[in-house]
Amino acid sequence: MIALIMAGGSGTRFWPLSRTTFPKQYLRLVGDKSMLQLTFERLESLIPPEKVYVVTSSFQATLVREHLPSLPPENIIIEPFGMNTAPCIALSVEYLNAIYAANETMVVLPADHIIQDTASFIEALKQAETAAQKGLLITFGIIPNYPATGYGYIEKGEEIDEGIYFVKQFKEKPDLDTAREFLKQGTFFWNSGIFCWTLSSIHNALQEFIPETLEIAEEVLQLKQSFATEEEIAAVYSKMPRIPIDIGVMEKAKLRAVIPVNIGWSDVGSWKTLADISPKDENQNTFKNDGFALNAKDNYVYSDKFVALIGVDGICIVETDDALLITSKDQSEKVKEVVEYLQKQHKDKLL
Amino acid sequence: MIALIMAGGSGTRFWPLSRTTFPKQYLRLVGDKSMLQLTFERLESLIPPEKVYVVTSSFQATLVREHLPSLPPENIIIEPFGMNTAPCIALSVEYLNAIYAANETMVVLPADHIIQDTASFIEALKQAETAAQKGLLITFGIIPNYPATGYGYIEKGEEIDEGIYFVKQFKEKPDLDTAREFLKQGTFFWNSGIFCWTLSSIHNALQEFIPETLEIAEEVLQLKQSFATEEEIAAVYSKMPRIPIDIGVMEKAKLRAVIPVNIGWSDVGSWKTLADISPKDENQNTFKNDGFALNAKDNYVYSDKFVALIGVDGICIVETDDALLITSKDQSEKVKEVVEYLQKQHKDKLL
Repeated sequence: MIALIMAGGSGTRFWPLSRTTFPKQYLRLVGDKSMLQLTFERLESLIPPEKVYVVTSSFQATLVREHLPSLPPENIIIEPFGMNTAPCIALSVEYLNAIYAANETMVVLPADHIIQDTASFIEALKQAETAAQKGLLITFGIIPNYPATGYGYIEKGEEIDEGIYFVKQFKEKPDLDTAREFLKQGTFFWNSGIFCWTLSSIHNALQEFIPETLEIAEEVLQLKQSFATEEEIAAVYSKMPRIPIDIGVMEKAKLRAVIPVNIGWSDVGSWKTLADISPKDENQNTFKNDGFALNAKDNYVYSDKFVALIGVDGICIVETDDALLITSKDQSEKVKEVVEYLQKQHKDKLL
Repeated sequence: MIALIMAGGSGTRFWPLSRTTFPKQYLRLVGDKSMLQLTFERLESLIPPEKVYVVTSSFQATLVREHLPSLPPENIIIEPFGMNTAPCIALSVEYLNAIYAANETMVVLPADHIIQDTASFIEALKQAETAAQKGLLITFGIIPNYPATGYGYIEKGEEIDEGIYFVKQFKEKPDLDTAREFLKQGTFFWNSGIFCWTLSSIHNALQEFIPETLEIAEEVLQLKQSFATEEEIAAVYSKMPRIPIDIGVMEKAKLRAVIPVNIGWSDVGSWKTLADISPKDENQNTFKNDGFALNAKDNYVYSDKFVALIGVDGICIVETDDALLITSKDQSEKVKEVVEYLQKQHKDKLL
């Protein structure tokens, strides 16, 4: 079994900590290790470093090497720039096809998620490997514990094998009422964005639904072999359709399955989400370093300074060398609007 | 006319900006000048630097010299340590009695208040000088524009002269209902803590009501002349009654008057009070440097960094090199409890 870690993202959700040149997967948001390092180590007991691949955009290759010194350098697959998951998977599949047999099982996973129960995750991967060998495209559905409106959902259909079901349908992020209904029905799971399949299954599915991704991927790999310039390669890659694998392939495929899992998963998609999974003191406050709270509860503080909180509830405070963010938890996903503002104002140093 | 600026305070209300070794009067809270510098310059058109005296505790003498380079060094009157206003006035009166005639008029004012309308203030001082020459102890009563519960009040009695009244009584900080009643009656004013009298009037009043302050003051000055050690002087000074001049003298005196004034006064007693008098943008936010607000209004930001606010209202954010304070405006006076916490925890570097 091989693994493909998708580490090309350059999100804005963790500004001011994440920056254009230092995206979320390289942040030490949980403990002393970066998200990418945690993702890599999580696979260790099942997949050796030689069989782990990281696909990322060219400017991040150095960061990947720094964060994963035990990863063979040739296992870094370089996109000219991030396009979305369908292009990066197509490129990687073409690259890996030249190395592995067509029936090699491959797990594909984002570099910036948290999974707290590694043992259960590894068990689910083993189960997925067996199912993938039958030609199924496997998704991992997170058993929901609250009516989340921030995730897409997967509805399970008929049972294929114990704990594995055909996918009845994918559902976009629902409104709260719909999410409550999903939770009540018990047949809906959060779409984790983690997949498992054989190289041939995903290749055939890409060929059927978005064949241009494979053509462009092949062209890019040939250009790389003939030492084309970065500009030439980028010009070709830019023709890729910018779509996620979910929409490009999974929503259309027939032989697709979901394994419902309970693995302590979080996509850590906002400061609030990070706050939710962080250890808290008796007032439900989290301090990165030292602090004092007076009539203040349910706050999240990311600062190396001593921080005093008085009479404030439910806010996130994030301090870096050049910026300070104070946001209510409820609106923390709006930090991307701050980034948009900085872009418009050409405040490049803050981006 | 001479002036005595009382600059010995070591308040905790502006933590983390104010520190034990750097009290509020030396902070640049409003514009580029410190509170002490603003107080000194406010007197300039009426009283030349040679006739301005600053009474302060010994460790602050260097700070006073730095902030007021045009003040003659011998015009700094040094208390061994801060005791309250009655001791510091008694010491200063004894010191000045040796230099000036008994009928010299003297204005006494705190170093850390804001007066926005300097011209009206100077006019009031001139009016006070005339009244002081008649033997009255003059207070300045601020005409209230809201039912403040954070100030003591002065009730006016019979009119003595145009715009000057006998004091009927002093009132401690009232509750809100009482403050509303005061405002309605129109005969109550905020006690500004600014006074005007002749050297002989205040000397006689001290002699009548708290004669020990004059005796100790005299002893301290003699010890200084005979080059006693700081410890010897401090031992004598520590016997001073730790009381404010209001309680020690003004509440008991007969010949006391109030001049009601409208001079844009504020004691700037908390971060909220400072926020109230600071310039605001269209969302009622104040940024010391650069910032961006999204669904956020009525906030006060003291930081040199770029600060983004999302979904927060009515809070004060204060950042220094080693500390960060986030407080609701309504509870900003509780910052002294943070200082108490730091004292108990022996976090001396933060004090």
